[in-house]
Amino acid sequence: MAAPRRKPAASADAQEMAGRQREISISEFFTKNRHLLGFDSPARALLTAIKEAVDNSLDACEEGGFAPVLYVEIRPDRPVNLGLELASLDESAKPGKNDPASGNGTSRDERYRIIVEDNGPGIVRAQIPRIFGKLLYGSKFHSLKQSRGQQGIGISAAGMYGQLTTGEPVTIYSCTGKGAPAHRIKLQMDMKKNEPRILTDEETIWEKDHGTRIEIMLTGSYKRGQHSVDNYLEQTAIANPHLHLTYKDPRGEIVVYPNATKDLPPAAIEIKPHPYGVELGILGRMLQDTKAHSLTEFLKDEFCRVGPKTAEQILETAGLPDRKNPSKMQMEDIQKLIDAIATTKIASPPTDCLSPIGEDLVMAGLKSGVTADFYTSVTRPASVYRGNPFQIEVGLAYGGQLPGDELAKVLRFANRVPLLYQASACAVHKAVLTSNWRGYGMQQSKGALPTGPLVILVHMASVWVPFTSESKEAVAHYPEIIKEIRLALQEAGRQLGSHIRRRAREKDALKKQSYIQKYIPHIGDALQSILAISDVERAEVVATLTDTLERSRKL
Amino acid sequence: MAAPRRKPAASADAQEMAGRQREISISEFFTKNRHLLGFDSPARALLTAIKEAVDNSLDACEEGGFAPVLYVEIRPDRPVNLGLELASLDESAKPGKNDPASGNGTSRDERYRIIVEDNGPGIVRAQIPRIFGKLLYGSKFHSLKQSRGQQGIGISAAGMYGQLTTGEPVTIYSCTGKGAPAHRIKLQMDMKKNEPRILTDEETIWEKDHGTRIEIMLTGSYKRGQHSVDNYLEQTAIANPHLHLTYKDPRGEIVVYPNATKDLPPAAIEIKPHPYGVELGILGRMLQDTKAHSLTEFLKDEFCRVGPKTAEQILETAGLPDRKNPSKMQMEDIQKLIDAIATTKIASPPTDCLSPIGEDLVMAGLKSGVTADFYTSVTRPASVYRGNPFQIEVGLAYGGQLPGDELAKVLRFANRVPLLYQASACAVHKAVLTSNWRGYGMQQSKGALPTGPLVILVHMASVWVPFTSESKEAVAHYPEIIKEIRLALQEAGRQLGSHIRRRAREKDALKKQSYIQKYIPHIGDALQSILAISDVERAEVVATLTDTLERSRKL
Repeated sequence: MAAPRRKPAASADAQEMAGRQREISISEFFTKNRHLLGFDSPARALLTAIKEAVDNSLDACEEGGFAPVLYVEIRPDRPVNLGLELASLDESAKPGKNDPASGNGTSRDERYRIIVEDNGPGIVRAQIPRIFGKLLYGSKFHSLKQSRGQQGIGISAAGMYGQLTTGEPVTIYSCTGKGAPAHRIKLQMDMKKNEPRILTDEETIWEKDHGTRIEIMLTGSYKRGQHSVDNYLEQTAIANPHLHLTYKDPRGEIVVYPNATKDLPPAAIEIKPHPYGVELGILGRMLQDTKAHSLTEFLKDEFCRVGPKTAEQILETAGLPDRKNPSKMQMEDIQKLIDAIATTKIASPPTDCLSPIGEDLVMAGLKSGVTADFYTSVTRPASVYRGNPFQIEVGLAYGGQLPGDELAKVLRFANRVPLLYQASACAVHKAVLTSNWRGYGMQQSKGALPTGPLVILVHMASVWVPFTSESKEAVAHYPEIIKEIRLALQEAGRQLGSHIRRRAREKDALKKQSYIQKYIPHIGDALQSILAISDVERAEVVATLTDTLERSRKL
Repeated sequence: MAAPRRKPAASADAQEMAGRQREISISEFFTKNRHLLGFDSPARALLTAIKEAVDNSLDACEEGGFAPVLYVEIRPDRPVNLGLELASLDESAKPGKNDPASGNGTSRDERYRIIVEDNGPGIVRAQIPRIFGKLLYGSKFHSLKQSRGQQGIGISAAGMYGQLTTGEPVTIYSCTGKGAPAHRIKLQMDMKKNEPRILTDEETIWEKDHGTRIEIMLTGSYKRGQHSVDNYLEQTAIANPHLHLTYKDPRGEIVVYPNATKDLPPAAIEIKPHPYGVELGILGRMLQDTKAHSLTEFLKDEFCRVGPKTAEQILETAGLPDRKNPSKMQMEDIQKLIDAIATTKIASPPTDCLSPIGEDLVMAGLKSGVTADFYTSVTRPASVYRGNPFQIEVGLAYGGQLPGDELAKVLRFANRVPLLYQASACAVHKAVLTSNWRGYGMQQSKGALPTGPLVILVHMASVWVPFTSESKEAVAHYPEIIKEIRLALQEAGRQLGSHIRRRAREKDALKKQSYIQKYIPHIGDALQSILAISDVERAEVVATLTDTLERSRKL
C-alpha cells in the first residue's frame, strides 16, 4: 500500500471529497456541453437554431395534415445596411485575435433574431412553456414513428443558447384554429431547475387561422458555403418536395422554394416495439407497467407482430404458463422469456411507420440541385436494427459540370433532414469509404472517399435514428445500418459502373469509327482504281461502307 | 392556407398532440440513446464499463495522493473453461443471424462480472448510492481541473447498462481508512426517477485499509484487437507510468503492468474561470450568485487572472461604478461588462491546472509499446479554448518493424485516457488529415491519413475536454484545439522529415561509397602502371584513398 506522497494539504480524504459531490442539472450539463447540442460556434449555432425550429414546424404540419408553408427569417439586430459589414469589421478588429485566449467569441459576434413561422395545427396554451422552455420534454420520444424531432431537447436548447448569449427571452405566437385566440408568450428558462419562466402571456391579434411562430435572439455568425443556413434550406427543399418555403436572409434578400407536389408524404404510422429489440431491463419494466392480466395478453398488446400463435409459441418455449400475472414475474422468468423470444421466428416489424422519399423524388431532387450526365437512385426494402425499422435510399449523380479531380461530395439526410456537420463521424461516411468504388470505374485512394465527378445522396428513414450526439448530425455506426447503406451504394454503384464502362466503350468505338471513317474515301478510291468502277459505283460503295459502320456502331 | 388533406382520423389537432407531450427522464433518455454513452454493442459496452471504473479509480487515487494500485478482472458468468468457447458457439448458432431482425444481441451474448478495485481514499457511506446509482451526480462537473471523469454520468451508466441487460444490481465495497468500517452495498437504479434503490447495505470485513471496489454484471462480448479491453489497459499503462495494474482476463490469464515510476504526476490545481470564456447568460447568473459586494470584488473573486488593476480597467472601459451591487446589474450593464472584458488585455489562465505526460515519458511510452527506428515527442505550451486551458503533446515513432504500406496508426489520449472509438470524428484525426505529411517525406493521398511505417500519438490535457458525446471517445472540432494539434504535429513532423531525409542521404552516400570503394583497387593498379610505383606505394595509395573516403563519409 503506497503511502501518501504529497503534503496532506494537497491531497483529499474521502470526507473532503464527499463535500464536493453534487447533483448536476440537465440544463447545466448541456450549457457546459453545448457542442453536444450543436452550439459550439456562432456559425453552427445559427444553423442549429433554425434547423430545430424548421424540424418542429415540418413535423407539426405533417402530423396535423397540413401541407407545410414555412417562413424563415434571419434578421440582424443592428440596422440591415450595417449588419454584415460590421460583423466582418468586428472580426478583424477583435483584440487578442492572435492571442491564445481569443475564441471566446461572445460579445463581438453579430446578434440575430431568427424567426420561423408555420401553418401547422398550433400548440395549446398550457403546453407552450414546457415545449420551448424545458429540456427533455416532448411528444416524440416515447413514440415509435418516423419524425424529425425525437429527443425533446432541440428547440428549448436553441432558446437556452439565445438566452445565454444575448439575455433575451424567446417569443412564441400560436393559434390552434379559427375562433381560438392567438397567444403571444415570452419566456426564459430557469437553467438551474430546467423549468420555464413566463415573462409575458397575452392574447393577441394574428392574421393566421392556425400555426406557430417562434422568435429567438441569439449571437451567431452568418456565412455562406457548405455549412450554411442557405445550403441547409436548399437541401431541405430537395428532401421535402411538399414544402413551400420562403426565406429572408440577413441582407433582406428573399428566396422562395415552391412546393413541387401538393401531396403530403404518406403519413407514418406509430408502431409498438418489436420483440427482438427488447432487453431484460426494459422487458421487466414493461411487465410492471402493463395493463394486461396474462402473459399472452401482454405479449399481444405491447409488441408488434405478436399474434395468439406467436405468443403461445414463445410461452411454450419459455416454459411459462399463459395465465401468469405479468407483474409477478421474477428475474429468471424474464430471462426465460427473453431467451424464448430470441429463438422464436417472428415477422419483421411493419414498415408503414416509415416514409421514404422514394426513388423518383430522390432522382428529381438530385436533378434539381446537381447538373450531371448520369443519375440513378435506389430505395432499399426496410430493415431493422435493435428492433427499430429503418430504410435506406441512395442517389448518385455523375459527370457533367461536376469537378473531376476532387473527392466525391456526400449529401446525407436522416428522416428528410439534411445533416451538414460531423460528416466523418457518420455511418454514411464509413459506408461510402468502405465501398469499393474502383469496381465501378472510379478512382479511390486507400482510406479516402472516391475521387471524380460524383455526388452521393444517402437518406435514412427510421422510427428512431441513432445519432452520435444530441445535435443530430451523424448516424451512429450500427453494423446493420452500415450494411444496408453499403448494399444500396452497391446497387446504385453497379448502375454507375455500367454507365462509366458504356461511356468508355462509346468513346473507344467513336475513336475507332472516326479512324475508319477517315479511310473510307481512300478505300473507295483504291477500289475504283483496282476494279475500274465508275464514280457512281464508288460513291455507292462509300455510302454502303459508311452505313455499315453506322449500323455496327449502333449495335 | 392549405386545407387538411387526409381523413380527419389520421391527422391530429393541437389538443390531441398536447395529450402526448410528456417529460423525459434523464435515465430514460440515456437508455434509449445508449450509444451516446458508449454502450451500443456488447464489445464496446464491456470496454466502456471498465473504462469508466478505471477512470474513476485513477482520479480518486491521484486526488487522495496515493500512487494507484489497480486490479481489473473480467470474470465470465459461466464456468471459466467453457466461457469463451460458448460465446463463439453462441455467435454462430444464434437464430436469425442472417435475419434482418437480428442484432438485438441481448440474450445470447456472454454475461461477465467486471471487477475494478483501487487503493484510493474510498467513498463515505452516504455518497455511495448516488455516485453509483444516479446519472448526473459527481464532484468534477463544477470544478475546473484536469481529471479523467467530468460529467458525473459514466459509472452510473455502466451500472444501468448492467441492470438493463442482466437485471443484476451493482455491488460496491468501500473503506475510507484504517479503523473505519468497510461497507458493502448492492444497489439498483430506479430508471424512471433517476434515483438509486439500495438492496443491501452492510458492514463487512475487507483486507484493505482504504479503497473502493465495484462489481457489475453485464452482457458483453470479449474480443481482442484494436478496440479491446486488453489494448485499452495497455495504452492506459503507457499514459500513466505511475500506475501499477494487475489484469485478469476472461480466460483467467493474469497480466501485470508494473509502475515505471513511483512519482505521482504533479497534482493538477483547480482554477477559477477565465474572463475571456464567460458568456452573457453565465455572467448574469454569476452576478446573482456571488457573495461579493462590489463589482471589483466580484471580478477579483470569481475569475482567475483578474487583480485590482485589471478589474479597475475593465470597469472603467465599461463605464460602471466600482461599488455597484453585483446582484442589481441590468442586462445592458452586463453586456457592457462583457464588451469591456473582450477589449481588456488579460493574461492567459495559469497552467498548473494541467498535468501533461511530458516529452520524456511520451517518448518512453512509445518506446515501450512500439518497435521503431526513430522516436520524437513534443509538448506544446498551454493554450486556451473558450476560456479553458489545454495542452497538446505529440509523439511519433517511425520505421523499424512498422508496416510500410499501411495507413499510419493514430493513438489518441485525453487527460491520460486512451480513446479507442470514433477516431474519424475526433479533432485529432482532422488535424492529422489536414497536415501536409508529404512535406516530411511521407506519402499521403488526398483526404487520407499518411501511408508508411508511422505511429502518431496525440495527448490532450485540459480542465475540460470537449468530447463529441457522453461516451468521451472523440474531441470536438474546436478550431483552437485543431490548430494546437497541427502545430505540435508540425514540430514533430519536421524532426521526422529531417530523419527521413538524413536516412535517404545516408543510403545515397552509402551507395556512392560502395561504388567508389569497388574502384579504389583499380585506381591503385592504374597509378602503379602509369607512375611505375612499387607494390608498397600502391598499397599506401589505396589505404590513403580508403581513409579519405571514410573520413568524408563521416563528415
